[in-house]
Amino acid sequence: MPTLREIAPELAEAGLAVHARGWAFGTAGNFSAVLSREPLSLAISRSGVDKGRLTAEQILAVDGEGRRIEGEGKPSDETVVHLAVVRERDAGAVLHTHSVWNTLLSEAGGDEGGLQIEGFEMLKGLSGVTTHEHAEWVPIIPNTQDYARMSRDAPAALRRHPAAHGLLLRGHGLYTWGRDLAEARRHVEILEFLFEVTGRLYSATGRLKTPRTAATAGGPDGAR
Amino acid sequence: MPTLREIAPELAEAGLAVHARGWAFGTAGNFSAVLSREPLSLAISRSGVDKGRLTAEQILAVDGEGRRIEGEGKPSDETVVHLAVVRERDAGAVLHTHSVWNTLLSEAGGDEGGLQIEGFEMLKGLSGVTTHEHAEWVPIIPNTQDYARMSRDAPAALRRHPAAHGLLLRGHGLYTWGRDLAEARRHVEILEFLFEVTGRLYSATGRLKTPRTAATAGGPDGAR
Amino acid sequence: MPTLREIAPELAEAGLAVHARGWAFGTAGNFSAVLSREPLSLAISRSGVDKGRLTAEQILAVDGEGRRIEGEGKPSDETVVHLAVVRERDAGAVLHTHSVWNTLLSEAGGDEGGLQIEGFEMLKGLSGVTTHEHAEWVPIIPNTQDYARMSRDAPAALRRHPAAHGLLLRGHGLYTWGRDLAEARRHVEILEFLFEVTGRLYSATGRLKTPRTAATAGGPDGAR
Amino acid sequence: MPTLREIAPELAEAGLAVHARGWAFGTAGNFSAVLSREPLSLAISRSGVDKGRLTAEQILAVDGEGRRIEGEGKPSDETVVHLAVVRERDAGAVLHTHSVWNTLLSEAGGDEGGLQIEGFEMLKGLSGVTTHEHAEWVPIIPNTQDYARMSRDAPAALRRHPAAHGLLLRGHGLYTWGRDLAEARRHVEILEFLFEVTGRLYSATGRLKTPRTAATAGGPDGAR
Repeated sequence: MPTLREIAPELAEAGLAVHARGWAFGTAGNFSAVLSREPLSLAISRSGVDKGRLTAEQILAVDGEGRRIEGEGKPSDETVVHLAVVRERDAGAVLHTHSVWNTLLSEAGGDEGGLQIEGFEMLKGLSGVTTHEHAEWVPIIPNTQDYARMSRDAPAALRRHPAAHGLLLRGHGLYTWGRDLAEARRHVEILEFLFEVTGRLYSATGRLKTPRTAATAGGPDGAR
Repeated sequence: MPTLREIAPELAEAGLAVHARGWAFGTAGNFSAVLSREPLSLAISRSGVDKGRLTAEQILAVDGEGRRIEGEGKPSDETVVHLAVVRERDAGAVLHTHSVWNTLLSEAGGDEGGLQIEGFEMLKGLSGVTTHEHAEWVPIIPNTQDYARMSRDAPAALRRHPAAHGLLLRGHGLYTWGRDLAEARRHVEILEFLFEVTGRLYSATGRLKTPRTAATAGGPDGAR
Repeated sequence: MPTLREIAPELAEAGLAVHARGWAFGTAGNFSAVLSREPLSLAISRSGVDKGRLTAEQILAVDGEGRRIEGEGKPSDETVVHLAVVRERDAGAVLHTHSVWNTLLSEAGGDEGGLQIEGFEMLKGLSGVTTHEHAEWVPIIPNTQDYARMSRDAPAALRRHPAAHGLLLRGHGLYTWGRDLAEARRHVEILEFLFEVTGRLYSATGRLKTPRTAATAGGPDGAR
Repeated sequence: MPTLREIAPELAEAGLAVHARGWAFGTAGNFSAVLSREPLSLAISRSGVDKGRLTAEQILAVDGEGRRIEGEGKPSDETVVHLAVVRERDAGAVLHTHSVWNTLLSEAGGDEGGLQIEGFEMLKGLSGVTTHEHAEWVPIIPNTQDYARMSRDAPAALRRHPAAHGLLLRGHGLYTWGRDLAEARRHVEILEFLFEVTGRLYSATGRLKTPRTAATAGGPDGAR
């Protein structure tokens, strides 16, 4: 198990790489790695930092309840999802990205609760997959700002789909993981590739969907 | 408040980053930051310089009427919009980009006078937005080469839409801002992300539009 | 006027920048700058060199008939087009790119002999254009491997369209130019931006076209 | 002929360049160069290494049966395809990429057993092609995890299409080659360019296809 000091620069570099591809613009995205199993502790990127300028100093450590135990700043509200993934999948690292294609597909498949991807050799880049004749079901859960709810929904979806390598939050982004940071980074690249392929197919075949919300916008006359 | 000497390299670096993403090709785009509030003065990129080679020496200072008070060269004609944004929004920095997707969407939503974006988690990257159940209305004003008109239209649109985080000029580009340069850069990334997502949805669903102008082109026989 | 020694590294750098954007893959593209007017001589990239690894040593000098007068290697067969552009437009530099969007549009507009682009602020990045209410007609000439024919067709098209800032060869690529290399580079960025905007509009509105040739391909049975 | 020590850093650099373009994400892709003809030996990238971090130490040497003769680790299962290409085409280097567009087109043309590309000047970037009036037939063979079958199918397709410069595996990726590594890299750029042009045409004209497999996915209820 790495120490915070050891893993922090690697998490920062992973974040910069993801930002360079346009998969975590602004303060979007969170990146974590397990520091200890018993008791559970994680290194995780600080809330609200720009991913294009992420530094090792912006990585802190939290315990199994998401409370800061080392480093500076506030952990992300989504730390609950990182902890859920680590517990459900015995993962060593968790990466959360917001790409254009994962956003579009999380909406396109939202009503069905998931997205099926099959027939592509690139699926073999996912841990344990040995043939392109594999159908990956990427579960999609509703987005929410209620983190207590998210801390129940995320592990429930992972348990319902024990073979899944990723989890989409609708209109929000991807969580993926690996036994270590290298595998988690590989899973990001593989899934984002598969999302672009699938997204371009969906675009060309009329399967993209516009999100509907209960919100009311400012509108042209300031009242709409 | 920064001095011109302090902020100029940071503005130049912001410009290079925006150019690298393809959001300010050629001499397109302008970048400014507030130097003082009373009296108002801005650091702003010089007119007509290539954004792919922007240097700190190409940033000059202007007063509240857009007259040069320090540095070399001519301030952009669009300095009036920067000044309007700073006054209306109490912004510390203003960034103006010309991306493919903001150009296409400024035309697609031009007749309605704006563009509604809702339901995406990335909206939370906009200052003060705390839920994806937010509907951002991005006002779109007509493009014009009449800068006196633009200096009235831009603040009027900002006043009509006090919650807006960006302003589109039709067929032209985006203005966004922040309390400081870091926040303005974050807003560029967030809005350009949302524009790409929205633009791909519009493309796939037949909502892109070709601009119409009164112009007459050269045509195949030299007369058209 | 620069010497070959002075301009060669700048042309190489322009080529690397264009390659980085994906606008001159493989050995595609040619880049030139005027060394003297009377008699006419050009610095131009050597035929058959990889644009991703272009060096100053791969730039040679040719006279007004396209014969090598300094440096190593063979000038491109398309040197005739560079010479035609320099003579017709009094240009100081000429850049030739093969981008995905200029290729697609050169085919889409090929039957009409050109492409009209209007209504976009980015048009003002073209030399002498002062309003977005400008309609740029980009003439498109047939592609040919008959360079004698190309050496007549290219200047004829430029004379028919004296206001044009670029020339497309059908299914082939863009020629643009400037009074110096900096202006030519700006024109590449501006035109490639306008092509991407226009190409995405054409894609979404059913206006892209597949090229037809007289060629017969290998086919699934080796005879088709 | 290069030694393993000489060619390994060049193969690693080629891999990094291909990864940077997004054409070999994760552990996808393999890159080889001939070390000797009689007996045949190849330098080839190790199985399972991340192409975004490929190093010279991750290149090993294999004999004509694909057995490791120098270096560390396991050669890829697809070494059989590299050996087949080298034997059929007398190639000096072979590059295998997984891009979004080659994946989409390998499926779109899969039922016809190939893809025809014609009419583009960029075709002249392929060795021996002297005119855009060339129709390149890119054969597509079924994907399989049965490497004995692949070691028969690949050379058979190359023999049926002796003029082809590339070979697609359906839903999988591209093999291309050259007399040396520089030519193979050029062929990757040229073919990937032509695939993007063709893929955008196919997208806009309803010719992309979703793969069908016999697989059963996890589905929304965990049983689908």
